[in-house]
Amino acid sequence: MLEALKKRVFEQNLELVNRDLVLYTWGNVSGIDRETNLVVIKPSGVDYDTMSAEDMVVVDLEGNVVEGKYKPSSDTATHLEIYKAFEEVGGIVHTHSTWATTMAQIGVDIPALGTTHADYFYKEVPCTRPMTKEEIEGEYEKNTGTVIIETFKKRNITAIEAQSVLVNEHGPFSWGESPEKAVFNAVVLEQVAKMAYNTMLMKNLLNKPCGMDQTLLDKHFLRKHGPNAYYGQK
Amino acid sequence: MLEALKKRVFEQNLELVNRDLVLYTWGNVSGIDRETNLVVIKPSGVDYDTMSAEDMVVVDLEGNVVEGKYKPSSDTATHLEIYKAFEEVGGIVHTHSTWATTMAQIGVDIPALGTTHADYFYKEVPCTRPMTKEEIEGEYEKNTGTVIIETFKKRNITAIEAQSVLVNEHGPFSWGESPEKAVFNAVVLEQVAKMAYNTMLMKNLLNKPCGMDQTLLDKHFLRKHGPNAYYGQK
Amino acid sequence: MLEALKKRVFEQNLELVNRDLVLYTWGNVSGIDRETNLVVIKPSGVDYDTMSAEDMVVVDLEGNVVEGKYKPSSDTATHLEIYKAFEEVGGIVHTHSTWATTMAQIGVDIPALGTTHADYFYKEVPCTRPMTKEEIEGEYEKNTGTVIIETFKKRNITAIEAQSVLVNEHGPFSWGESPEKAVFNAVVLEQVAKMAYNTMLMKNLLNKPCGMDQTLLDKHFLRKHGPNAYYGQK
Amino acid sequence: MLEALKKRVFEQNLELVNRDLVLYTWGNVSGIDRETNLVVIKPSGVDYDTMSAEDMVVVDLEGNVVEGKYKPSSDTATHLEIYKAFEEVGGIVHTHSTWATTMAQIGVDIPALGTTHADYFYKEVPCTRPMTKEEIEGEYEKNTGTVIIETFKKRNITAIEAQSVLVNEHGPFSWGESPEKAVFNAVVLEQVAKMAYNTMLMKNLLNKPCGMDQTLLDKHFLRKHGPNAYYGQK
Repeated sequence: MLEALKKRVFEQNLELVNRDLVLYTWGNVSGIDRETNLVVIKPSGVDYDTMSAEDMVVVDLEGNVVEGKYKPSSDTATHLEIYKAFEEVGGIVHTHSTWATTMAQIGVDIPALGTTHADYFYKEVPCTRPMTKEEIEGEYEKNTGTVIIETFKKRNITAIEAQSVLVNEHGPFSWGESPEKAVFNAVVLEQVAKMAYNTMLMKNLLNKPCGMDQTLLDKHFLRKHGPNAYYGQK
Repeated sequence: MLEALKKRVFEQNLELVNRDLVLYTWGNVSGIDRETNLVVIKPSGVDYDTMSAEDMVVVDLEGNVVEGKYKPSSDTATHLEIYKAFEEVGGIVHTHSTWATTMAQIGVDIPALGTTHADYFYKEVPCTRPMTKEEIEGEYEKNTGTVIIETFKKRNITAIEAQSVLVNEHGPFSWGESPEKAVFNAVVLEQVAKMAYNTMLMKNLLNKPCGMDQTLLDKHFLRKHGPNAYYGQK
Repeated sequence: MLEALKKRVFEQNLELVNRDLVLYTWGNVSGIDRETNLVVIKPSGVDYDTMSAEDMVVVDLEGNVVEGKYKPSSDTATHLEIYKAFEEVGGIVHTHSTWATTMAQIGVDIPALGTTHADYFYKEVPCTRPMTKEEIEGEYEKNTGTVIIETFKKRNITAIEAQSVLVNEHGPFSWGESPEKAVFNAVVLEQVAKMAYNTMLMKNLLNKPCGMDQTLLDKHFLRKHGPNAYYGQK
Repeated sequence: MLEALKKRVFEQNLELVNRDLVLYTWGNVSGIDRETNLVVIKPSGVDYDTMSAEDMVVVDLEGNVVEGKYKPSSDTATHLEIYKAFEEVGGIVHTHSTWATTMAQIGVDIPALGTTHADYFYKEVPCTRPMTKEEIEGEYEKNTGTVIIETFKKRNITAIEAQSVLVNEHGPFSWGESPEKAVFNAVVLEQVAKMAYNTMLMKNLLNKPCGMDQTLLDKHFLRKHGPNAYYGQK
């Protein structure tokens, strides 16, 4: 079942290791088949060294395991909320990558501070509000997804304008039209977060405001995305 | 004698190098056989390049060499104090890993600042008080162990709740149920310390308090540890 | 056409990856043949993994594609402005390397702070003024080049005295007498930027002024460059 | 002539690259034969990739080339001053390693801040005073050595108590009883400098004093060095 997607999801889980985004088994990648609404996701806590494509778990959008000998990632319910809310999303990644997680621990957004950000994220990468005691003690992983969606709705940001989020005191989730694009966005996010952290640190010390020119932001995002994009071989 | 344990301790000493936790011969790993109360530990100042499993030294809990052609690690007496005080401990690691050592030099605890910490450490990773002149000039390595134990007792932290400690102006010790788990915890500690340092730096600059939500901390630690854990394939 | 130059430009694009200056396809290198005034440049958004020397694009100084099956780098117009203004330049590199980009995001020059800088850059590496709305919405990439040239003219810096520039809220361009030298300068710039950032951070915290001794700066630049240079096997 | 020493000096120059202390040809290592008072040193500006042991240059203590087809390192005169002043020294290394150079650019000593420092350096690693216009415009490289010696004399530090120095606004020199020990000390210095920088940054932000317990410093240095050393297999 979904053998091609399993292989892709498996390979993107390994790509997280190659790109130095995860220690041990800390990350997880999933992909969705929009025709059957079935999600392929990494099993929970299985070593990357021994993991194979067949170990990927297939779940439906309610979280029932449809196929697989392992339990799915403990973050599965968060992935499912994102798939249900954002129809454009074909793949999702969760990591505890160093700089994105540091920003999540500080509890601040990653603001647009330069064209590297603007090439991939049109808005700030938002940091969610702290979760309530009820949300944490209830269906925690599902509620993590709910709070992510709430953040995007309240701020009026689409899933395309910021293909990543920082969960407060936790870490980043990234997504994209495919598992490959989701991992790409997670790699970009980490680099953008590292530069944003160090930019903010110095700007705060120098009392310079943290923002960037809106016209420049528009220009860079729109030359890579949208109907008039002219970057690459389009 | 204890050939299997010697091999494991040897391999975990190499793992410290692979994980970039040590320069030259700076780290040491030990393991204990709780049936005989014998401890296997790295020899002092021997190159990792030429070291083999047979070079590991066997000592008893009083520090007498029971087998081995080399002198044991100069930190042996510290390891022994920890084994004597914490019965749950099966392996111990000492490194001067960059960020954990930096926090020890600053002389501050690594507070829980996010779920990466909470996934592995239930409490702060405590920094010991400075040692007295008498403690340093006396049985220094043994007293290092005594001060570690004192820190955990005074703060009412168990060896399970924080499987690592920062020795003031020195560096970290980590432990676990086995040598493998101790090294795992040392790797996690270094990553947690790096993120904590940078989180604290920015939070101090922004005048934000350094702490995390207690419910979130409980949730993450207990979903991986304890009777109701549901992470991994349990 | 220009097969030798294509090969060199191709290899220097790969060198950017080997030197950890670029993620994915983010950088670009070009070289000029001053006899024909033709420029060889990387194609836009093509993977480094599959790219070959034949994929390099040949353009004239007005930006017309003279040979090549791909579209040239989206930054081509910026390269061309630099080639037209600075006759000494034989190769140009654009990257989003971490520390040079961080300084560009902060919007500050990289001041000469030590002899590592002075060995390669005689003046500060200047950061351009923010571009106007008209410049961004008009011929953006060409105007990026115009603002670079303006910066050097207004500050009375020659293309030899600072073989790199930071484009405000964007990132660095480096150049040299050849594509190889341009990449060399981009590597040096990144190291100089990293040390300058951390020097400035601490100096600001300690209220120490950010500058260096002018005689020392003269000495180091002139012992490597100019008529009386005595570094290397000259 | 001195073929064995040439081979060792050559190999230690490569070790600088393996240990990530140098970019391109930035570093240099030398060794002295105390019987003949001849010094073997890296040639100036020759690529590490093509360099061989035979390319090492032999000079006497006045700087005359005794053997070798290349010019010796431009820093040769600094090495010679150190060999003449410090009889215990058998090898010298100069690098622009990131963190030691950053501290030199800030213009501050590397104070003893923890036992990693104390294991290898008994005193602070001193930063020299700025050189005068006359010293820089005169015999610059020789005067660099003179100022290093002056610093140790004025502060009453021996060449054993701090086997490294930071040259103001320049970078570090390290030494040892052999070229191998000098490179070892350069590697240790870089790690100690990195941790010192980050410790100082946070301590300054938290208004904590930058120093360490003198008894602890004594203990760690003396358990590795001097007549009562008990570290390693002594």
